[in-house]
Amino acid sequence: MANEPGALMAEADDHFHDECGVFGIFGRQDAAAIVTLGLHALQHRGQEAAGIVSFDGKQFHIERHVGLIGDTFTKQDVLDRLKGSRAIGHTRYPTSGGAGLRNIQPFFAELADGGFAVAHNGNLTNAMTVQRVLQKQGSIFSSTSDTETILHLVATSKERDLNSRFIEAIRQLEGAFSLVALTSKKMIGCRDPLGIRPLVLGDLDGAWILASETCALDIIGARFVRDVKPGEMVVITSSGVESLFPFEQQKSRFCIFEYVYFARPDSIVEGRNVYDIRKRIGVELARENLVEADLVVPVPDSGTPAAIGFSQEANLPFELGIIRNHYVGRTFIQPGDSIRHMGVKLKHNANRQMIEGKRVVLVDDSIVRGTTSQKIVQMVRDAGAKEVHMRIASPPTRSSCFYGVDTPEKSKLLASRMSVEEMADFIRVDSLSFLSIEGLYRAVGEATRNSEQPQFCDACFTGNYPTRLTDFEATDNVRTLSLLAAGGT
Amino acid sequence: MANEPGALMAEADDHFHDECGVFGIFGRQDAAAIVTLGLHALQHRGQEAAGIVSFDGKQFHIERHVGLIGDTFTKQDVLDRLKGSRAIGHTRYPTSGGAGLRNIQPFFAELADGGFAVAHNGNLTNAMTVQRVLQKQGSIFSSTSDTETILHLVATSKERDLNSRFIEAIRQLEGAFSLVALTSKKMIGCRDPLGIRPLVLGDLDGAWILASETCALDIIGARFVRDVKPGEMVVITSSGVESLFPFEQQKSRFCIFEYVYFARPDSIVEGRNVYDIRKRIGVELARENLVEADLVVPVPDSGTPAAIGFSQEANLPFELGIIRNHYVGRTFIQPGDSIRHMGVKLKHNANRQMIEGKRVVLVDDSIVRGTTSQKIVQMVRDAGAKEVHMRIASPPTRSSCFYGVDTPEKSKLLASRMSVEEMADFIRVDSLSFLSIEGLYRAVGEATRNSEQPQFCDACFTGNYPTRLTDFEATDNVRTLSLLAAGGT
Amino acid sequence: MANEPGALMAEADDHFHDECGVFGIFGRQDAAAIVTLGLHALQHRGQEAAGIVSFDGKQFHIERHVGLIGDTFTKQDVLDRLKGSRAIGHTRYPTSGGAGLRNIQPFFAELADGGFAVAHNGNLTNAMTVQRVLQKQGSIFSSTSDTETILHLVATSKERDLNSRFIEAIRQLEGAFSLVALTSKKMIGCRDPLGIRPLVLGDLDGAWILASETCALDIIGARFVRDVKPGEMVVITSSGVESLFPFEQQKSRFCIFEYVYFARPDSIVEGRNVYDIRKRIGVELARENLVEADLVVPVPDSGTPAAIGFSQEANLPFELGIIRNHYVGRTFIQPGDSIRHMGVKLKHNANRQMIEGKRVVLVDDSIVRGTTSQKIVQMVRDAGAKEVHMRIASPPTRSSCFYGVDTPEKSKLLASRMSVEEMADFIRVDSLSFLSIEGLYRAVGEATRNSEQPQFCDACFTGNYPTRLTDFEATDNVRTLSLLAAGGT
Amino acid sequence: MANEPGALMAEADDHFHDECGVFGIFGRQDAAAIVTLGLHALQHRGQEAAGIVSFDGKQFHIERHVGLIGDTFTKQDVLDRLKGSRAIGHTRYPTSGGAGLRNIQPFFAELADGGFAVAHNGNLTNAMTVQRVLQKQGSIFSSTSDTETILHLVATSKERDLNSRFIEAIRQLEGAFSLVALTSKKMIGCRDPLGIRPLVLGDLDGAWILASETCALDIIGARFVRDVKPGEMVVITSSGVESLFPFEQQKSRFCIFEYVYFARPDSIVEGRNVYDIRKRIGVELARENLVEADLVVPVPDSGTPAAIGFSQEANLPFELGIIRNHYVGRTFIQPGDSIRHMGVKLKHNANRQMIEGKRVVLVDDSIVRGTTSQKIVQMVRDAGAKEVHMRIASPPTRSSCFYGVDTPEKSKLLASRMSVEEMADFIRVDSLSFLSIEGLYRAVGEATRNSEQPQFCDACFTGNYPTRLTDFEATDNVRTLSLLAAGGT
Repeated sequence: MANEPGALMAEADDHFHDECGVFGIFGRQDAAAIVTLGLHALQHRGQEAAGIVSFDGKQFHIERHVGLIGDTFTKQDVLDRLKGSRAIGHTRYPTSGGAGLRNIQPFFAELADGGFAVAHNGNLTNAMTVQRVLQKQGSIFSSTSDTETILHLVATSKERDLNSRFIEAIRQLEGAFSLVALTSKKMIGCRDPLGIRPLVLGDLDGAWILASETCALDIIGARFVRDVKPGEMVVITSSGVESLFPFEQQKSRFCIFEYVYFARPDSIVEGRNVYDIRKRIGVELARENLVEADLVVPVPDSGTPAAIGFSQEANLPFELGIIRNHYVGRTFIQPGDSIRHMGVKLKHNANRQMIEGKRVVLVDDSIVRGTTSQKIVQMVRDAGAKEVHMRIASPPTRSSCFYGVDTPEKSKLLASRMSVEEMADFIRVDSLSFLSIEGLYRAVGEATRNSEQPQFCDACFTGNYPTRLTDFEATDNVRTLSLLAAGGT
Repeated sequence: MANEPGALMAEADDHFHDECGVFGIFGRQDAAAIVTLGLHALQHRGQEAAGIVSFDGKQFHIERHVGLIGDTFTKQDVLDRLKGSRAIGHTRYPTSGGAGLRNIQPFFAELADGGFAVAHNGNLTNAMTVQRVLQKQGSIFSSTSDTETILHLVATSKERDLNSRFIEAIRQLEGAFSLVALTSKKMIGCRDPLGIRPLVLGDLDGAWILASETCALDIIGARFVRDVKPGEMVVITSSGVESLFPFEQQKSRFCIFEYVYFARPDSIVEGRNVYDIRKRIGVELARENLVEADLVVPVPDSGTPAAIGFSQEANLPFELGIIRNHYVGRTFIQPGDSIRHMGVKLKHNANRQMIEGKRVVLVDDSIVRGTTSQKIVQMVRDAGAKEVHMRIASPPTRSSCFYGVDTPEKSKLLASRMSVEEMADFIRVDSLSFLSIEGLYRAVGEATRNSEQPQFCDACFTGNYPTRLTDFEATDNVRTLSLLAAGGT
Repeated sequence: MANEPGALMAEADDHFHDECGVFGIFGRQDAAAIVTLGLHALQHRGQEAAGIVSFDGKQFHIERHVGLIGDTFTKQDVLDRLKGSRAIGHTRYPTSGGAGLRNIQPFFAELADGGFAVAHNGNLTNAMTVQRVLQKQGSIFSSTSDTETILHLVATSKERDLNSRFIEAIRQLEGAFSLVALTSKKMIGCRDPLGIRPLVLGDLDGAWILASETCALDIIGARFVRDVKPGEMVVITSSGVESLFPFEQQKSRFCIFEYVYFARPDSIVEGRNVYDIRKRIGVELARENLVEADLVVPVPDSGTPAAIGFSQEANLPFELGIIRNHYVGRTFIQPGDSIRHMGVKLKHNANRQMIEGKRVVLVDDSIVRGTTSQKIVQMVRDAGAKEVHMRIASPPTRSSCFYGVDTPEKSKLLASRMSVEEMADFIRVDSLSFLSIEGLYRAVGEATRNSEQPQFCDACFTGNYPTRLTDFEATDNVRTLSLLAAGGT
Repeated sequence: MANEPGALMAEADDHFHDECGVFGIFGRQDAAAIVTLGLHALQHRGQEAAGIVSFDGKQFHIERHVGLIGDTFTKQDVLDRLKGSRAIGHTRYPTSGGAGLRNIQPFFAELADGGFAVAHNGNLTNAMTVQRVLQKQGSIFSSTSDTETILHLVATSKERDLNSRFIEAIRQLEGAFSLVALTSKKMIGCRDPLGIRPLVLGDLDGAWILASETCALDIIGARFVRDVKPGEMVVITSSGVESLFPFEQQKSRFCIFEYVYFARPDSIVEGRNVYDIRKRIGVELARENLVEADLVVPVPDSGTPAAIGFSQEANLPFELGIIRNHYVGRTFIQPGDSIRHMGVKLKHNANRQMIEGKRVVLVDDSIVRGTTSQKIVQMVRDAGAKEVHMRIASPPTRSSCFYGVDTPEKSKLLASRMSVEEMADFIRVDSLSFLSIEGLYRAVGEATRNSEQPQFCDACFTGNYPTRLTDFEATDNVRTLSLLAAGGT
């Protein structure tokens, strides 16, 4: 299902990708249908597969499917099977090595005192290390997902009640985790002490909701109550919401890239409107790197808000100089040589009449490998642009993310092996500028970046990782799995 | 596969829909792969199903599949079966009563002197009448498509050579037709005498191309040669292109709605750039119906170019006040009552922080049934807009189209049963204005509409149909088919 | 779906195969469900695909599916779509070059005066010749099946009423045809003048039935009324059954191989019980070719009745010395070299304890290519048989069948290129005997074969074809189709 | 996939069903293809689903599919993924509550010291009890299969080496188990101390094989070495076969029903040929319950060997008076009332000409619910039989099996609630006799049944269970699973 190397479609999606969205509701008829709508609103956080677990007062029900929510969970028989007024769900992005139904969340286990389901947005940086200990004690892992580790920690805890077992489990975790869990009695939401990934609390006519972003509340007209706080664990039962803080308190380090690209523009994330931040990024970008030009053209769709901000600040016309084809399918042709060299434009086409003879400012959100930028610049040049000035709405991405984002190896990141000048040459623009890290902090409303203790996780730009990276420091840094293929399973 | 009434997704797609795109290439290795790319660029003209017929010098090969090009024709085994250096293809929209593989074009017949395939964009207004005559003579129809009528007219012609038989056939047709046909010797392109639907001629390193729009040339880097002229028949063989004019000459009547909505913004249609026309429409709209406001918000994505034009002319900021979710699946939940009344926002969400307390100009391309407009206005009001002014980038659509566009019955068209004031009340806006028909003609570059002999087909706005409507004038105006269901066929 | 050459399964099915079974019912609630049951009972006449057309008083409904009846037509939604109290159906065997949904019968056409469906058991020997004439007149063929020719002959007939048009059509046919047709008014059954293939008339509580064999009446408890006579056309309407004889009268030539292998043992065919005939064949075989032995072993399952007859006549014990695995799937492994040479026994296994040290009479119904016989003899020898004597319940098959039976080319028929002695050597038996043609005629109850005017069609044994073979006499004896592949159609 | 109550097909399969077959090979190129062939030969032991795990020296590979071996595992891509020269496989019958991919064996776990796969024929009678203990210690179960319990016992064992851990695990098991396990170093075979289910050791050119029955050796031409002994554990490595006896020695109690029905007639089971035993059963049956009659008719196919034995002993002709349709699909029509009362004969049809006016001895292997017998007797009577005498080739089945056989609840067993006379009335025969338990022991070669210590497990006839039934003695005798549905998983 993933793009094969060389396929015509592959290069066109040169972004970091968030790996997950989570959603849960407690105490509402047709809970699974509500979760389906919530996950649909979070589809941008993961398009490969999704799962929902519901509880009907007696039994848990689980469905896991590969494909878009709107193609899989909207079938009546699927929803009919997911009985009950409590349900949690998860949508995921295809990460390397992790295909197959058995890796689709939520994960469920029959513990000695009842069923337990958990869905996870983020990534643990000590999952393999913990897994090896658990295996030695006899735990059997049935997936390659780090989320299963949480399940086993809860299962093997010697504590008596579930809250204590859950707390014992999460205290052993390292990395980023925004969790939603469901038992026969309660729904639990929890963020890691640094609050790297988002999680919000909502309310729909008295039913409590947990969701990755506020846009998942809006789709069903639910009320945004508040963000779950970094390090907070909210326990929702029929009696209401209880708030616990099982970790030592730390300064938060929210992922700043959620503002740059991951979150949906209409979401309110940690108190800030994403679209508004992106426009402000465009404003800062214009201030830092103005250029004489005729028009501002976004690389659709992710560059659009910053381009609008740029155009307003720079007082240059905003124009759709590149048109995007939204009908891209799942696979695309393995071209023969005769086609490979044609420079096929599957996803974008230049709007020649807007561009011909013009000095164009192209605005994009980020550069990862640089291959897409290269193609787009060539396309704009072929359409007759007199000058092409690329403006990037974030600093150069030089380091990998270990907190739930699909990033290529460091060596594949263009900015990790080239200077800005070299990158400008590589993508063949007349000028190239990135937003400075200080400019990014200003755009999100900070006076300046606190370099001692940065206010956000900005590791992909700075290499400053806010947690230990236990698994990756270990010499044996691969998940030790001897089971390779899993056809039909 | 189509949306069922009441499904959450249905209302959100309240547009006229073009029914088809066609593409052909003659004399190029991997012809079917090229056609696949061309059809992908024409996907906006029809998303239900597609077909390709290729010829390898000895045999014809045919593939027909339901689904998006990028999901079906990109599989290697499909392309491998479509051998040859000549191929034509077709992509279609799901029209009422016409589902099933047997209705997917191109149509193919084994004529006495060899294979003959044809693909059609448009709609014949005398197909049923002609079909009844042919059936009495013993012709057996295997589909419910009007295109099959063309096949039988060619098959039963008594003329000797194929050109003459083809000409005898198309002279009996009435309505809109842009055709691409393939035989063992030639590829033929042809437009009806009024040139209602588009068709262009292109060239890829010496291989001739026929396509509905220029964006299908751009995707493969082909050169745009010229529009096929209204009433022209181009015959492409190994020796080159021959141009014939088998009809009495008439003034052309190109479909003006192609500019409003159907064509892709990056296409050049009949000499005009579509994005540019749509911006000019926004300019005319602002001139005709200015209003005091704080910002201009497009209904994405079709209202965007006109909104940009409007904002530039009105000197009001252009903002993404409504965010669109691009991940809409094929089916959507049949909601229970508890969900039906929630006002679920599957496709669009208001960007509250942009809108709250503001006077908003909403720009959309057209209003068909009005149900989507109603929902979007409500959403914008719920997000706190102080005033909502709707501006529509075309005149009111009051009449059905019989030329290859999927329109609801006249009685379902909001503008056919309400005045503009009533419509404003119905969708609950503070003001509502449509572009005038004269304004639309100005935007496309005409000084004024010639009411004696309009320069375009504008029947959906004016009821002025440029051809006879034989089938629809007949008392018995249903296609007489006694075969209803077609499972597995 | 067919076995590929070299696949482990292919050789094990070394038989002639009948190509079709037909069934129709007129005037009974749930007609399609009854047809489904009838076709299930006729599944031995064709396992590749099946189709049913029903008529509900207003509309025709059609379903065509690849696979066993019990896997496809038993789904509730399929049956629900096949509304009405009149229906006909067809089940088919995969013949060369004829795969694909478009070749599944019944065939249906919308004629000028209403729908017409037809299903055919047999084969026309002048279909291609007639097709070429029809194509020149403008008929468009949408399949490669000879049955479609009948449809076009009816469609293009200039006669006024349907009976006359049908008669005009069938008078132009040559070869074997047992037809069942359905219109909005009537169900028609018809056998060719020689009555080569079977067709019977039945009655279920007042609803008339047409079926290939009586076992299809038994499954639903219907009453066997009589055989449709050679050359007879029965026309069933609400008023009852009308019998017409549109052909010049001829002596019948029923296919004698129906008794040897095609028909089900529990059917009554042309007045004779098939199981009883097969036992009598065994008796004749024992009389003609007795041998000293310890036991009689059938090659299961087709050799079983003759083996029982043989054992009773020869007074030797009947034993299941070969066990058949009934769970053979649709495809089977393409073995690597390491497996190809293992002599894998997918379908049959010798029952060593019964065979070891014994003189075994093996009874099989026929030998086609001889490859299966070779394997089975080897298996029996490997199991320790002291002697192996093969007795075949029919004369040597030396000629191809052109009347609806799938036979290999003449050159592949073992008996066409070897003497009985050579064949005995080839399959490595101690003795080999075939039933004589006179013995076969005695078994079916004839005193002797009338060599001037044989009482049966026995062309596969004698080369005496009872009709002209127009298509095969023509120099250009391939069906002229330029359309090769048909993926997804 | 299972038959729904009331479906036309359901009643026709009124048998006990063995739940599994196992097969493994160690040290042979294309191991998975060999396992596929072996499982194909064991298909009669389970038709619902199958799985294979292979090991290629570095990685394990697993495939699990619902459907017949010949439809699923014979696809080239499936076999290509199952790399390696060591592989084990399993085929299963659909037992209640156990559908879904996650219950398909072999089960695999990543233990601390490497991968471990296990396949199981039999049933544990203390699995739930053990599971509850393991869950309290933190083990997470991912299926509802008792086989997973074995996996967890091995995983949580504190022993050092795998042999010791495996032994510690199986010593805690109660019930019937013939196991085949695979690790990166060895293949293990093991039978419970009573040897209730079969397991044999074979050899293919130096590669060791473990299989449920010898017919799985025959299909690939492997040599039968010997039965694995009751209580024996064979450990196969590159160095050869090691034999261990980890249990206290007990007298064996092999399942006598394997001879009556489960095993394939061509297998050698515990030193006896199954077909031969079944014939001897027929002989004993004739001796015990002779009757004046005209012919002996088997209920096909399972009654056939006993009927041959009966006919030889009674000196009555053996005739195929009932014909079986082998083409039964997976689902069958939910009939409307009009069809339900027709007495549809989906699977069997009487051969009227053999039966009419005759006194018929019907021979079947067993009676479970009696519904099929009732139908078959009615069918034979309708075909004109003068008298019908039913002879059953086993004693009345009065008790459920807890050792891996799918049996209905005791209350559904006809013999548990009726006397033989009442049963004769119920199925409407002129006389009904069962083989005595002593007669059955004589047929398998014992002088008499040792009632103190029976030589076989005959609990289904006698209620004498050879092991404890811990789970079923517990008050809470349901597997405590709160997860119900598992769509798409």
